[in-house]
Amino acid sequence: MAYRYPNGKVYRPNKNTPSRQSPPAEKSFANRGMTLEEDINESNDYYIARDIGIIHKKPTPVQIVDVHYPKRSAARITEAYFKQASTTDYNGVFAGRYIDFEAKETRNKTAFPLQNFHDHQAEHMHKVQKQDGIAFVLLRFTVHGETYLYDASRFLHWYYGQSKRKSIPYKELQEHGHPIPLGLHPRLDYLKTVKDVYFH
Amino acid sequence: MAYRYPNGKVYRPNKNTPSRQSPPAEKSFANRGMTLEEDINESNDYYIARDIGIIHKKPTPVQIVDVHYPKRSAARITEAYFKQASTTDYNGVFAGRYIDFEAKETRNKTAFPLQNFHDHQAEHMHKVQKQDGIAFVLLRFTVHGETYLYDASRFLHWYYGQSKRKSIPYKELQEHGHPIPLGLHPRLDYLKTVKDVYFH
Repeated sequence: MAYRYPNGKVYRPNKNTPSRQSPPAEKSFANRGMTLEEDINESNDYYIARDIGIIHKKPTPVQIVDVHYPKRSAARITEAYFKQASTTDYNGVFAGRYIDFEAKETRNKTAFPLQNFHDHQAEHMHKVQKQDGIAFVLLRFTVHGETYLYDASRFLHWYYGQSKRKSIPYKELQEHGHPIPLGLHPRLDYLKTVKDVYFH
Repeated sequence: MAYRYPNGKVYRPNKNTPSRQSPPAEKSFANRGMTLEEDINESNDYYIARDIGIIHKKPTPVQIVDVHYPKRSAARITEAYFKQASTTDYNGVFAGRYIDFEAKETRNKTAFPLQNFHDHQAEHMHKVQKQDGIAFVLLRFTVHGETYLYDASRFLHWYYGQSKRKSIPYKELQEHGHPIPLGLHPRLDYLKTVKDVYFH
């Protein structure tokens, strides 16, 4: 059984630290401070290096307004603004199939709030499915230390089915989401889950 | 037969202009000034609106160094730099297949110079092919007014086969490229060519 700190992080005993001493420093916690995005990016690097799948995070969309071109040095963007993305953040190809997903985490314990998803992304996932692409979301409950792959069809049902204060209950994700265990190489082997769920 | 100006643009007679007068103003030329990128983006909008295919251009990758957060207005990026892309510019899904390509144009008449492609992109296309994705380049000779779909395998042969001053001869593209005619809706129906070339 795992012991947890009040903030929900799992306690991992450090063999070099006698048990009566104070808890080990932060850096000795496996995956401590690793965001879902970092876990995914590290896993994507792993997949690409081994030709398992080619998935990339799209660059942050930026509206560039002004650029300076100093002599003998790189062009410098001096005025730009963040734009809303028209698609999900991640896409690519895995064993001949098109893969498309968005990833978010929450500190909420009982439901996954959807206010950080927007209509463009929902519409995009729906369109991807119509083209026979594989679309899903990766949702992490940081307090529970759990990450779920959740198919776009069910996601869109919840996204469009609620008029305001949208969220997906934790229980729904436990029942119909697919948990992805944290590992070492890769850190988050979500393509294994994709294979189990979508390849028959 | 089309008449051409010395710069290679096709002359289109304007019915309202007597033939002895000076040539019609620039704006009366169909597609005049439309770049390959504009043609592709307009075609992608057309495809997406009709659920023909879901292809997007990736945002320009930017390294953000400094952001200001003024009160009551949008966050403003005040220092950022262009980064080299690690993939091609366009990808998406079409009838269940993963689509991936880069697009470039040249004013050269006899060969397509490859200095604007870089190793990351070539390697990316090769990896996409190993995942059974469809990878190609769209190459436009602006002077000839011709755009070719050219499969990544042949492209990579030329890209890696020359040590310096890399280029692909115009004749090679005439023989082994697939010309994409310019149209109105969409302006550049490259997915029709994809279908002809890759779907059997």
